[in-house]
Amino acid sequence: MADQYVQNPVVADASKLPVLRWDEPPEGPVLVLLDQTRLPAEENELVCTDVPALVQAIQSLAVRGAPVLGIAGAYGVALAALRGFDVEEAADLLASARPTAVNLGYGVGLAASAHRAALARGAGAEQAARAALTAAQELHRRDAEASARMAVHGLALLEELLPGGGHRILTHCNTGALVSGGEGTAFAVALAAHRAGRLQRLWVDETRPLLQGSRLTAYEAARNGLPYTLLTDNAAGSLFAAGEVDAVLIGADRIAADGSVANKVGSYPLAVLAKYHHVPFIVVAPTTTVDPATPDGAAIEVEQRPGHEVTEVTSPQSVAAGAGSGGLSVAPLGTQAYNPAFDVTPPNLVTAIVTEEGALSPVTGGGVAELCARSRQVTIS
Amino acid sequence: MADQYVQNPVVADASKLPVLRWDEPPEGPVLVLLDQTRLPAEENELVCTDVPALVQAIQSLAVRGAPVLGIAGAYGVALAALRGFDVEEAADLLASARPTAVNLGYGVGLAASAHRAALARGAGAEQAARAALTAAQELHRRDAEASARMAVHGLALLEELLPGGGHRILTHCNTGALVSGGEGTAFAVALAAHRAGRLQRLWVDETRPLLQGSRLTAYEAARNGLPYTLLTDNAAGSLFAAGEVDAVLIGADRIAADGSVANKVGSYPLAVLAKYHHVPFIVVAPTTTVDPATPDGAAIEVEQRPGHEVTEVTSPQSVAAGAGSGGLSVAPLGTQAYNPAFDVTPPNLVTAIVTEEGALSPVTGGGVAELCARSRQVTIS
Repeated sequence: MADQYVQNPVVADASKLPVLRWDEPPEGPVLVLLDQTRLPAEENELVCTDVPALVQAIQSLAVRGAPVLGIAGAYGVALAALRGFDVEEAADLLASARPTAVNLGYGVGLAASAHRAALARGAGAEQAARAALTAAQELHRRDAEASARMAVHGLALLEELLPGGGHRILTHCNTGALVSGGEGTAFAVALAAHRAGRLQRLWVDETRPLLQGSRLTAYEAARNGLPYTLLTDNAAGSLFAAGEVDAVLIGADRIAADGSVANKVGSYPLAVLAKYHHVPFIVVAPTTTVDPATPDGAAIEVEQRPGHEVTEVTSPQSVAAGAGSGGLSVAPLGTQAYNPAFDVTPPNLVTAIVTEEGALSPVTGGGVAELCARSRQVTIS
Repeated sequence: MADQYVQNPVVADASKLPVLRWDEPPEGPVLVLLDQTRLPAEENELVCTDVPALVQAIQSLAVRGAPVLGIAGAYGVALAALRGFDVEEAADLLASARPTAVNLGYGVGLAASAHRAALARGAGAEQAARAALTAAQELHRRDAEASARMAVHGLALLEELLPGGGHRILTHCNTGALVSGGEGTAFAVALAAHRAGRLQRLWVDETRPLLQGSRLTAYEAARNGLPYTLLTDNAAGSLFAAGEVDAVLIGADRIAADGSVANKVGSYPLAVLAKYHHVPFIVVAPTTTVDPATPDGAAIEVEQRPGHEVTEVTSPQSVAAGAGSGGLSVAPLGTQAYNPAFDVTPPNLVTAIVTEEGALSPVTGGGVAELCARSRQVTIS
């Protein structure tokens, strides 16, 4: 069962899943990534010795998830600097590896600025490179810290809403250590509940079409020894009807100024089911996920993804074989598919938003603005 | 695109999809089945010359769907009789091929009774066998007729609820000619709307875990030239939110005396979404689907299916290869899955039930009983 993961010597300490780590063997510095395209079939490490290798890893989704992409980008700049490559060129390459990942550009910019500033102060190449590395490590540490604080606030909220423990929590998509410098967002709260002896069951939505629930969340749950059960997304309704769900915990890809939440497709139906069954629907995300430039849900542009993700099924094995869109066809040739990557949940369906600065409930535009202001104060201080 | 299906000479007349047909070539009578395990990848006919071959086809799901199983069972009895096998033994074999399919036993019993009655009247072997065949053909015809009547009543209901046409209909699982002697239940209504020029779009839920939507409904939609679009089950929420669904049309596996509807898992979440968005939720099923012995939804026992249907993905190709549970693994080894085959929608979430005897709205226990009484009168007369 789960043992094969928990016992894996590479990850003996399950709380420190090496989604990415910096290493400096005698041969020179490297960024080591856990290859997410092979999960859960295989746990392979990808060793990046230069920026083109890292760009390839980002583009092939070997490393994915907004926060962790930012961290990887920052380390990538440090890698280029320490190995004597052109840092500005490396930064450009990295920042454009995936155009839609805002965090990637942010992390790259942070490390590149530190490098530039050091040079401007008259530092040598090695010293400037170390400044870039320090910036990357600082970002890594801050992200882990935000994750830990979200877990604390989330756990307190659960205790307040559902005193006594025995939580049966439903989650969607993947929000754990694989997307974060720490233990994640929604998953980190479930993990905290487990450690506090309050988690009775984690219900894991498989999350079609890309099956991040089956492939990644089940993998993280198994490695952490959580009591979890996988289900097809459409079976969640039966769990609600049977009174088997105490709370829904999900992450967020973007939060609009009014508190509307864009997250993996399938989140909105869960919010409607939760409302109908009077079950708390909780969003866990760092304040950096709030986009004040997006006034409301209607202003959030939802990415439409290729239909072959729906008309074909792929497994980690076929991904590993580099099949790309070469999955097994399950629909008639020429079938068109509607395949939005995200959906938008309006604030009136969200019981609370949990950030590193605390929980917001009820969710209002004013409350969201206040949390963001608090976060900026902390960063400035 | 869809042309490859429409142009297939085997099914030149798309309205007569040969899900099963009786034939009497010089070599002797046969029952010819469309092998549903190979759809939509291949359209293969399975020729059954004896009862063991038909039993094998039923058990491997080459032929599936409650109404059509009853018809296949009845023809199986006629096949045994005309080929000189022991008819009572054949009937026992067929009736127990799948223990949970009530219709199978019903169809087998009908043909076997006709055979027995003919013998009791002093008929010869050939004449008695012909009586069994006539009973099978009569069942086939009656089922097709019920389907046609449901389509008429369903279309009238749509016109009443949504005057002016341009319907965008969402459906779940497979309810077309593949499960019926005619054109099916919910799908038959969508097809009637299409022929009347009133169908703007058929939204087809893929229907995890077994993908009957992708594999079978998309196949039937393509063959009939319907404007259809496939989606993951969890993307339906986005369609509702965008105002892109005018009505939900589904079938039923069992209807309790109070009007509670058991249907493929994923139907209940659609009912909740439909209620939340004020969209009609319409169930289409023959009166034989009503089980007066089941008082309400709580009394419906829901079949729990093996977890490997969720933890592994299979394609028509792998099914064709006889892989059984040998799909591609997508979850960590040892992952447990919650996999109910059906869910139950209470009558207050059902806008109408459409049967061959007419549409019932609102759905009440009294109304359900009246429809059934009307159906029995027709059968007796």
